[in-house]
Amino acid sequence: MPNAYNKKVLRIDLSRGAVSVDEPDDDFYRTYIGGSGFVGYYLLNELKGGEDPLGPDNILIFATGPLTGTPLPGASRNSVGAKSPLTNGYGESDVGGFWGAELKHAGYDAIIVQGSSDHPVYLWIQDGKAELRDARHLWGKTTGESQKIIQEELGDEAIRVAQTGIAGENMVRYACVLNDVRHAAGRTGMGAVMGSKKLRAIAIRGHRKELALGDADAFNSLARRMIDDLKTDPGATNLGAHGTANAVMFQNAVGGLPTRNFREGVFEGADKIGAKAMEETILVGRAGCYACPVRCKREVAASGPYDVDRLYGGPEYETLGALGSNCGIDDLKAIARGNQLCNAYGLDTISTGDSIAFAMECFEQGVLTDRDTGGLRLTFGNVEAMLKLVEMIARREGLGKVLGEGVARASKVLGKGAQAFALHVKGQEPPLHDPRWKPGMGVGYAVSPTGADHCHNIHDSGYAMRISEGLKALGILKPLRLQDLGPAKIRLLVYGSLWQHTLNCLVFCLMTPNRPDRLAELVRSATGWNTTAWELMKAGERSAVMGRAFDVREGMTRADDCLPDRFFDPLTSGPLKGVAINRAEFGQALQTYYGMMGWDDNGVPTPAKLGELAIEWVGQATQQVKGH
Amino acid sequence: MPNAYNKKVLRIDLSRGAVSVDEPDDDFYRTYIGGSGFVGYYLLNELKGGEDPLGPDNILIFATGPLTGTPLPGASRNSVGAKSPLTNGYGESDVGGFWGAELKHAGYDAIIVQGSSDHPVYLWIQDGKAELRDARHLWGKTTGESQKIIQEELGDEAIRVAQTGIAGENMVRYACVLNDVRHAAGRTGMGAVMGSKKLRAIAIRGHRKELALGDADAFNSLARRMIDDLKTDPGATNLGAHGTANAVMFQNAVGGLPTRNFREGVFEGADKIGAKAMEETILVGRAGCYACPVRCKREVAASGPYDVDRLYGGPEYETLGALGSNCGIDDLKAIARGNQLCNAYGLDTISTGDSIAFAMECFEQGVLTDRDTGGLRLTFGNVEAMLKLVEMIARREGLGKVLGEGVARASKVLGKGAQAFALHVKGQEPPLHDPRWKPGMGVGYAVSPTGADHCHNIHDSGYAMRISEGLKALGILKPLRLQDLGPAKIRLLVYGSLWQHTLNCLVFCLMTPNRPDRLAELVRSATGWNTTAWELMKAGERSAVMGRAFDVREGMTRADDCLPDRFFDPLTSGPLKGVAINRAEFGQALQTYYGMMGWDDNGVPTPAKLGELAIEWVGQATQQVKGH
Repeated sequence: MPNAYNKKVLRIDLSRGAVSVDEPDDDFYRTYIGGSGFVGYYLLNELKGGEDPLGPDNILIFATGPLTGTPLPGASRNSVGAKSPLTNGYGESDVGGFWGAELKHAGYDAIIVQGSSDHPVYLWIQDGKAELRDARHLWGKTTGESQKIIQEELGDEAIRVAQTGIAGENMVRYACVLNDVRHAAGRTGMGAVMGSKKLRAIAIRGHRKELALGDADAFNSLARRMIDDLKTDPGATNLGAHGTANAVMFQNAVGGLPTRNFREGVFEGADKIGAKAMEETILVGRAGCYACPVRCKREVAASGPYDVDRLYGGPEYETLGALGSNCGIDDLKAIARGNQLCNAYGLDTISTGDSIAFAMECFEQGVLTDRDTGGLRLTFGNVEAMLKLVEMIARREGLGKVLGEGVARASKVLGKGAQAFALHVKGQEPPLHDPRWKPGMGVGYAVSPTGADHCHNIHDSGYAMRISEGLKALGILKPLRLQDLGPAKIRLLVYGSLWQHTLNCLVFCLMTPNRPDRLAELVRSATGWNTTAWELMKAGERSAVMGRAFDVREGMTRADDCLPDRFFDPLTSGPLKGVAINRAEFGQALQTYYGMMGWDDNGVPTPAKLGELAIEWVGQATQQVKGH
Repeated sequence: MPNAYNKKVLRIDLSRGAVSVDEPDDDFYRTYIGGSGFVGYYLLNELKGGEDPLGPDNILIFATGPLTGTPLPGASRNSVGAKSPLTNGYGESDVGGFWGAELKHAGYDAIIVQGSSDHPVYLWIQDGKAELRDARHLWGKTTGESQKIIQEELGDEAIRVAQTGIAGENMVRYACVLNDVRHAAGRTGMGAVMGSKKLRAIAIRGHRKELALGDADAFNSLARRMIDDLKTDPGATNLGAHGTANAVMFQNAVGGLPTRNFREGVFEGADKIGAKAMEETILVGRAGCYACPVRCKREVAASGPYDVDRLYGGPEYETLGALGSNCGIDDLKAIARGNQLCNAYGLDTISTGDSIAFAMECFEQGVLTDRDTGGLRLTFGNVEAMLKLVEMIARREGLGKVLGEGVARASKVLGKGAQAFALHVKGQEPPLHDPRWKPGMGVGYAVSPTGADHCHNIHDSGYAMRISEGLKALGILKPLRLQDLGPAKIRLLVYGSLWQHTLNCLVFCLMTPNRPDRLAELVRSATGWNTTAWELMKAGERSAVMGRAFDVREGMTRADDCLPDRFFDPLTSGPLKGVAINRAEFGQALQTYYGMMGWDDNGVPTPAKLGELAIEWVGQATQQVKGH
């Protein structure tokens, strides 16, 4: 039966300069689905544990899903995965844009990159053919310059490029991979792995837009229904109109907008950096991803005092929070400039902003002095300092050298109490969602295989208070108090996170309506399998468990499922003044989470759970660790 | 939104002669669905534990599902539930025919019967009204006579009657409840509970056939597709053509046809009692259930030496095995007569046949003598003895008095080694599927909340060797060796059993194709909920766990999750000669099953599992037991 997959996985050995193709069977696809499912499978199978994430033994995976490349909104994303240089564990980040669809149209479902090159290269894929090309002339260039050079030298402006930038070249541990210079697989340092392998970019051109579908008529009719729904869905239309930037004022109003290194939840300058401010000043256009009518991405431009080029898109909510409120900065043009620098250099805006906020708090608290900063006055709100630090981090200059290691490593180097200001879980800096406002999400940060991350566990904010149709489809029927951490909330976290892992396997957008009832129908018609939401959720669970097992193999224990001390201290102002996470409740919630997931008291998936998910082979990873 | 439920549960207090109506909310229906889900909910909530199953404190539940009464094949069944007089634990049995649909059309989803009457009564329900009527004139009558009297005195031949018979009146512990005198809710002694309450029958007439559906167009189109599929599905057409009787020759060919109290797996007279023999001799018609075109039920007739009335239908496979091969009997007319007697008196044919086989082995082994049997020569193959014992059991006469207690209790009374011949799990006699041939099903018998039962766990025979589309829809992709008891087989048992529990909540037929992908769609359009196979499977799991919790509250432990010794001894002849269940493998499989289900090492669902299923309240039951 026709099937939305190409059934081809491209394998690149950079050490040997070799290109080959794997052809997995149908059961492999049906078991691991794609995206994070492929990442977990290959990372566990092809690494042994203990590898240097920035050495040649790491592998780097780019994976699409069954719906990628179809004319379905929200579907044309891809995962990027590797052992993370930031967490030393499971690394994976998803990204939108057009590159994933292009890979599918070029005849491949995924790319596995192994080894490393002795000189900069880029990979050129066109309609079922792949070759490595010299990239010495791209090294040190911005992503925008590099993309233009590639398109020009290959003679096709429609070529799609995924790449890292000079931050990746310099192995900043939170360097990212960018699609089309503006869509970022931001988290867990995938760009640093790319840089360590001297693989600067992957350029693709694929012409086979008409994928073979199991039941094309049914699929197209379902896709059309989704497009029609998106035009009227209040969430989607609002997202399209105002972008994720809209969250700034909402988060601020409830008292949960991370401000000055998460010390506060209310930012006095919030109205200057929100969606309305953006629309009144720098917004010049909207953009989106392949086949999606929502167009939630912003394009901004400015000239003087901070030049901003619309090529690099515009800041998302996470970036406005990280480079804005969390650094105490209310200058929207400066934030937009910072966003551009991150995209041009290949830096994750979340970890970059959090690292700068960390440095600012260190400076204000006397842990860092003028001598350490080379004279930079790293006070909260100092726009010039923020922009300068972005440059320094990308180039690994001065204080940027240590900040490019991430706050966990930097705080150990700096000492003198810096660790109290280093907010991270498993080495990864938190996204801009304060767990004191959303304690369920705090548990999610603690258990995510990627450390503090909002893309592997459900945002319990809106969901808890107003149950979505998506959660209802999984049997979560009753709204919950946001502050609750009882079994009902952990159930919501478990089901919601399993669904999020499922979406990461499908590499489906977390922002557009993504109801399990409808996605099961879509996957069914795309693949020809008679699949169900049960089977898909179990694939998501498989992915979650593989990520967990990878971390266990790397030596992580229950002690790593923690949150920074700051989140157990009350917020000192705003609507959430006095609110903190209760340590005892958090510990109990963690235990409940393990129990509901079928993990043992140490947070290790049990042999029975591995058997239930038909991945007994993963036991080789979980049993490597002493005591299991 | 319109919804296939009536949102009305009829409550009958026999002690007070009172009738009332509960109106549960939408969340209740969506959480517990119907059928066995309702049974588990009400049994746990309205009993405290320790009740005498045959006393007034027991309750008796009749429950339909969301699809019952719709024009969908396989959907118009109902559950009957109570604390079981056979197992002293969770009792529940499902039944087809027309009565369930009639209850829905009369305006109710379920009936809860509490208390007991001081004189025989029957319940008369008509179009939203219910009344208790005197049944003294029905007491002691056959089910056929009783049904006729009711229809005549109420003046409507279309009235549907569910009833027990004199076996129920006499509280034979495996007395059953019959719909239309031929469809049996056979297992766990629900008829004895009915008799103990002096409720002889429930007669119904309902005229509202057009249930309000969430999306009637979608539902009707899906139902039509299912009807069309049934006309071509090889399994369904074969089932319609030959009935379940067809299994006799198949089971015999593989060496798994229970013969002479499960001593052997091959019966020399099998060809005389199979489908072909039936078709060539006594078959006079086919029949079926409401809205189902399959018509898998047989109608048989004979006159002399054994008169058989087609009114009572014809023997199913289970009956042919229980009263036939398992008693060493190859006289089809005699078996058909035995089947008629069971239906006329309200006896479960499985437990009846197994009890007679037990008595025959006891007789042959000298545990029972002529004096005990009143002169009956209880040798295997003695047709007259079998028929006589059916009468004696129903009337509780002579040896029938103790045999009517079930083999577990009878063997204790008889002593002298009788326990070795008493095949049961938790007090219930096994259906006609030898676990030595299907060891996965053996684990299913051990863990079923109802004891040895084939309706709460998957038949792993066909499924394991040839994976059905239904199992594929749950992610079971690979066929397995039948003899295997490793994690992959237990995974199949877990997923398959959860699905079977789901079907028991929907009260959907286990015999017709029942694919999770399609049933999710059907429930969605019938109810208007955006439900998924995930949510439905979790409802099924909820039902399984509630049944388990009920048994735990009644004091059952891991030690009760066992199989009779006989199944650990090798079969002595036929294709499976030398095959037995390995005790160590069985123990390990049980442990794996507990682990996969999220139950502790004692087989008790953990608090985390209860929380995950949103039934923390069930912990009151599981924690009553010391040590939990």
